[in-house]
Amino acid sequence: VRNTPPATVARLPRYLQYLDHQADHATVSSEDIARASGVNAPQVRRDLSFLGTLGTRGVGYDVSRLRPLIMRALGLTGELKVAIVGAGNLGQALAGYRGFASRGFQVTALYDSDPAKHGLVVHDIPIRPAARLAADAAGGEFAIAIIATPAEVAGKVAAELAAAGVKSMLNFAPARLTVPAGVQVRNVDLSTELQILSFYLGGTSEPKPAEGT
Amino acid sequence: VRNTPPATVARLPRYLQYLDHQADHATVSSEDIARASGVNAPQVRRDLSFLGTLGTRGVGYDVSRLRPLIMRALGLTGELKVAIVGAGNLGQALAGYRGFASRGFQVTALYDSDPAKHGLVVHDIPIRPAARLAADAAGGEFAIAIIATPAEVAGKVAAELAAAGVKSMLNFAPARLTVPAGVQVRNVDLSTELQILSFYLGGTSEPKPAEGT
Repeated sequence: VRNTPPATVARLPRYLQYLDHQADHATVSSEDIARASGVNAPQVRRDLSFLGTLGTRGVGYDVSRLRPLIMRALGLTGELKVAIVGAGNLGQALAGYRGFASRGFQVTALYDSDPAKHGLVVHDIPIRPAARLAADAAGGEFAIAIIATPAEVAGKVAAELAAAGVKSMLNFAPARLTVPAGVQVRNVDLSTELQILSFYLGGTSEPKPAEGT
Repeated sequence: VRNTPPATVARLPRYLQYLDHQADHATVSSEDIARASGVNAPQVRRDLSFLGTLGTRGVGYDVSRLRPLIMRALGLTGELKVAIVGAGNLGQALAGYRGFASRGFQVTALYDSDPAKHGLVVHDIPIRPAARLAADAAGGEFAIAIIATPAEVAGKVAAELAAAGVKSMLNFAPARLTVPAGVQVRNVDLSTELQILSFYLGGTSEPKPAEGT
């Protein structure tokens, strides 16, 4: 499972999302999975072969076996602890996001540098001093950190987390973070998403350059 | 600009983010842009050629010309109006997300089906009845919709928006939406992001199947 390609890993949660709704089916075909996930069936079969399962020709995959297999491959076997750094609007909202708990992620704490917020409880989650971040991380209080700070401090936070042994970060700050090898950062840049959508609104009526073919 | 490849469009906001911080430089090289954006320099040059600019060999790109060129290509010339559907935790937080306004996106309204929320104002943005959504969309009150509803109703909301002429949607609900041709949906599935990160925590110590090579 170790050398599963990143693109395959990125598709596994989509397959899992589909399987979550197929509990009343004994089997699903690679075509079923493909259609629901927006990829093609050979790709689904190749992806699942990395998990050591090939399905049964003409029958498909056994739902009750495939679902736990994907969950185990993704490491979703127990509850995973998540800290949110930055208790601003976004951090507080993420603390209340029901989708995390329903998929086995437990938000253990919010961290903020503003003393006025320390000790407050948001959606049942305590806000702790940012100064405790490294010690809590090193002590195993959480495995994944969500960075919801302003862009200016995100790099410093990521470096501090990495030094404390945090290997997985989800970054919402509009800044590209540089982290040591072995640390995974996934970026969710909300403004970038809107800027991409803006393109497709077709606001421009510029003459097309000759090259584009 | 019309037949710019989607992958190029998706990279333009990153280049723009870099240029936003180069106002004190007259020129930047494709290597500079590439390094800051995590792509290679030939790719940068190819992407920018779609905008009709080739840079000057040995000099690079004129910052004061390139920045507006990218903004115009992305349609970021005026203020773009955005509605947020779903005034739960996530929708309310998105309403207060400063990154939108700073990049020229104006959130005009939140919409919710809960009458208890109607008329409330969150981060200076009014919460309106979901029943007004189609009429407001058709009336041009917003061009982009952010879907922050529960998964169960996201499909219905997307269909209603599409029917009212909304061409661009950013979906936060953990559901794959089916929309008519010509409508762009970008998905931000927060749980999926965490599940992908979970893989890299290496929770499993399963024997690796023979195939994976």
